[in-house]
Amino acid sequence: MKEKKKISNSVIKRMPRYYRYLSTLKQMGISRVSSKDLSTRMGITSSQVRQDFFSFGGNGLQGYGYDVEFLHGEIHKILGLDNIHPVIIIGAGSLGHALAKHTDFAKSGFKVVGVFDIKPELIGEKINDIEIMHLESLPEFIQNNPVDIAVLTVPENYAVEVAKMVTGLGIKALWNFSPVELNTPEDIIVENIHMIDSLIVLGYNLNER
Amino acid sequence: MKEKKKISNSVIKRMPRYYRYLSTLKQMGISRVSSKDLSTRMGITSSQVRQDFFSFGGNGLQGYGYDVEFLHGEIHKILGLDNIHPVIIIGAGSLGHALAKHTDFAKSGFKVVGVFDIKPELIGEKINDIEIMHLESLPEFIQNNPVDIAVLTVPENYAVEVAKMVTGLGIKALWNFSPVELNTPEDIIVENIHMIDSLIVLGYNLNER
Repeated sequence: MKEKKKISNSVIKRMPRYYRYLSTLKQMGISRVSSKDLSTRMGITSSQVRQDFFSFGGNGLQGYGYDVEFLHGEIHKILGLDNIHPVIIIGAGSLGHALAKHTDFAKSGFKVVGVFDIKPELIGEKINDIEIMHLESLPEFIQNNPVDIAVLTVPENYAVEVAKMVTGLGIKALWNFSPVELNTPEDIIVENIHMIDSLIVLGYNLNER
Repeated sequence: MKEKKKISNSVIKRMPRYYRYLSTLKQMGISRVSSKDLSTRMGITSSQVRQDFFSFGGNGLQGYGYDVEFLHGEIHKILGLDNIHPVIIIGAGSLGHALAKHTDFAKSGFKVVGVFDIKPELIGEKINDIEIMHLESLPEFIQNNPVDIAVLTVPENYAVEVAKMVTGLGIKALWNFSPVELNTPEDIIVENIHMIDSLIVLGYNLNER
């Protein structure tokens, strides 16, 4: 039974950024940091920073600030960055290729174990030692290889169908790059990277000047 | 002088998703939609939906819902999707390539006009008719071509330096894919796609099961 406190989703979403910044400080040999400095870096208020850290027992000291090493270690544990998650990528277009090659994922415990597509000309090609396989062979692959996460880099009109297929095969987590809502069952964990949404917001803010 | 009401940033961030969903409804020939249906699709409360639309004058009718065509048109106008934004991509690695090829951006008014890198073997290569140029030629390029947005797909350790360079050349908006905080001046608009952060949150939620 876990004894951990439940940390809210909005706090968790800020954790990777804290972690990144604390990693930089650690590399620079800086041993303590104030909530004010962190808040300036993150673009949030310092009371928010204090609240976030308090929620998992990180307490700063008046006039001293936070211990960088301690915070870094705690966030590392909370995020479970020592776990290795086997990942498959569905859709070996240019974005799928780019993600398969992305070395940062491996550093954070995400290991690409398979890449799938349906285009005959792609099957058999290798991306960093991983062979592109036909989507038809996915059921067999999953029987023989544990897979935690499926990355969806398929064209928009295939996304919902492919999401159904992979969750039907027992995969519980989707990292979705298609600009659609997948409407998966409640027990499926989905993180979306809706790139075009972010670009549109950027364009809006530019128009508003 | 603009007469528009100022719409809050958190509402704006939801707009592209509303827009996408309304586009789908429009394509399907559906002329009205309830706040309840929209809220289920978006994973937010229906009172939030009503509040969001109210903020720009979209009012639903009791027992009728919202007019899809009207809402779609209003959001299109608000987001300024008829504007064309010239975009350059800095960093022609696999992610830079993938973004340069991404046809959805062109559909939403973002036109890639130049791709830049420093690796000699990449210079002169073409991605969809756009030649990869050396970063040294960027100042001259910007003098002769209007550029609204710079996409940063450079390695992490170059990101801050490149951000300084392009904003120093007068570019006011950055779409940053590097996993760092750029700490740009206040008048620079930045949207980050921190892919690894999203993947880490996905991994966390998987670990928590």
